[in-house]
Amino acid sequence: MKVAIIGAGNVATHLVKGLREAGIDIPLVYSRTPASAQILAGQVPGAQATDTTDFRILPTAQVYLLAIPDGALPKLVENAVFPAGAVVAHTSGAQPMELLASLAVVETGVFYPVQTFSKEKELDWSRIPICVEGASPKAEEALLTLGKVLSEQVVLMNGRARKQLHVAAVFACNFTNHLWGVAQELLQKAELPVNLLEPLVLETVQKAFQFPPFTVQTGPARRGDTNTLQAHLQLLQTQPPYQHLYQVLTESIQRVAENEPFFGKQA
Amino acid sequence: MKVAIIGAGNVATHLVKGLREAGIDIPLVYSRTPASAQILAGQVPGAQATDTTDFRILPTAQVYLLAIPDGALPKLVENAVFPAGAVVAHTSGAQPMELLASLAVVETGVFYPVQTFSKEKELDWSRIPICVEGASPKAEEALLTLGKVLSEQVVLMNGRARKQLHVAAVFACNFTNHLWGVAQELLQKAELPVNLLEPLVLETVQKAFQFPPFTVQTGPARRGDTNTLQAHLQLLQTQPPYQHLYQVLTESIQRVAENEPFFGKQA
Repeated sequence: MKVAIIGAGNVATHLVKGLREAGIDIPLVYSRTPASAQILAGQVPGAQATDTTDFRILPTAQVYLLAIPDGALPKLVENAVFPAGAVVAHTSGAQPMELLASLAVVETGVFYPVQTFSKEKELDWSRIPICVEGASPKAEEALLTLGKVLSEQVVLMNGRARKQLHVAAVFACNFTNHLWGVAQELLQKAELPVNLLEPLVLETVQKAFQFPPFTVQTGPARRGDTNTLQAHLQLLQTQPPYQHLYQVLTESIQRVAENEPFFGKQA
Repeated sequence: MKVAIIGAGNVATHLVKGLREAGIDIPLVYSRTPASAQILAGQVPGAQATDTTDFRILPTAQVYLLAIPDGALPKLVENAVFPAGAVVAHTSGAQPMELLASLAVVETGVFYPVQTFSKEKELDWSRIPICVEGASPKAEEALLTLGKVLSEQVVLMNGRARKQLHVAAVFACNFTNHLWGVAQELLQKAELPVNLLEPLVLETVQKAFQFPPFTVQTGPARRGDTNTLQAHLQLLQTQPPYQHLYQVLTESIQRVAENEPFFGKQA
């Protein structure tokens, strides 16, 4: 199978690396920035770099993976012309497959790897879940096959479910990362080493995937420890935005504790 | 050095295990529930179990570690009588050392391991930071020595700093655990496998300890991706508490992004 990579950013770079290691042929790398296309294509013997969006006149592929920012997708869809019968899939968790519907004479789909990518950080593709959707059986089959080449966990998923997964990911990753930033800022203000919380955070993550997180919730909010809650809120008085966050998250923990009967079981 | 363990819960159980493996003598395990004291003392050859709080008439130790719930500390302090000159330290992140001030003829301190403990879960004490405070040089020295027996990271820390560490830990662990619970609930409602986000969460954690979390913040809030934010809020319309959380955390991310000059550097 030949796969063309449309994009030269973080996701595209990791796709190229993973597909090459899996022995997939990559004849073409596109970027609207020629230099970026050349750098990434330079990592693949025989791959052509291009900034042209008429893909009919370039080395062709069976599958075109669009690994560009969400905001750049509409313009690419407007301008690009793909060879007839090719499978064209975007890699976004947030965008509907229907965004590609106006592309003529191709089969469309979604190929969404549930991961955060940085160029400089190695990743193990076999452990990255890939969510696949196809507008036709042909597209679905091609993307499933491609997914299984990379990963041990390939899931067929429609756009509605993918959107819900994406919201859940925002809670599980974007929001938690923000809270680690807040924690780090609080440690720095207290002139404490920022790695002090690392073992505790890692243990908390491990637990959260071994047990339902709500059942292993700990802390003053969960215990209803009013004295500690008051002391913490007072300590945060000089940082009203963080005090507000503390209050809202405390209330959320207490609301869940009141509504979930299993909560009584845990100390 | 002889160390008596006051308590028989999660922290006490791990302390007994860690101290025994380090070759420390444990002559005594106290619990107000005799059966619990016996179970834990049963793991230590030669240790006596007790529910008596006159520790002068029991096998004595140089250090008494109070590993009982915060709420149970005042009553123990009120009732307990320790042998003259013993070092008595509580293990709480939230309580001041001064809570022990009314104990007569002993040296007081704090011995706070920065970790979350469950009896059934193995832990590597060498990687658990221990925060030590002593009301006297003798208490400080004894607790520092004991800390270094268990852990590679022993930090002298006064009560004010410990309180700030504790608030930071609430953000970094209790609040993030809650958000993983929310994410899991959203996945379950969408009938999606709950392990789908595990690789993404682990990668996010790793990044957060490699780089300052605010500088590697991603997601629609960070990007100012209004379309996705609106779509997510709409999707959460049937769960107003989670919609509210989403809104508050989004605003917090955006506030930080506006105020932190380094933010412009990251995509």
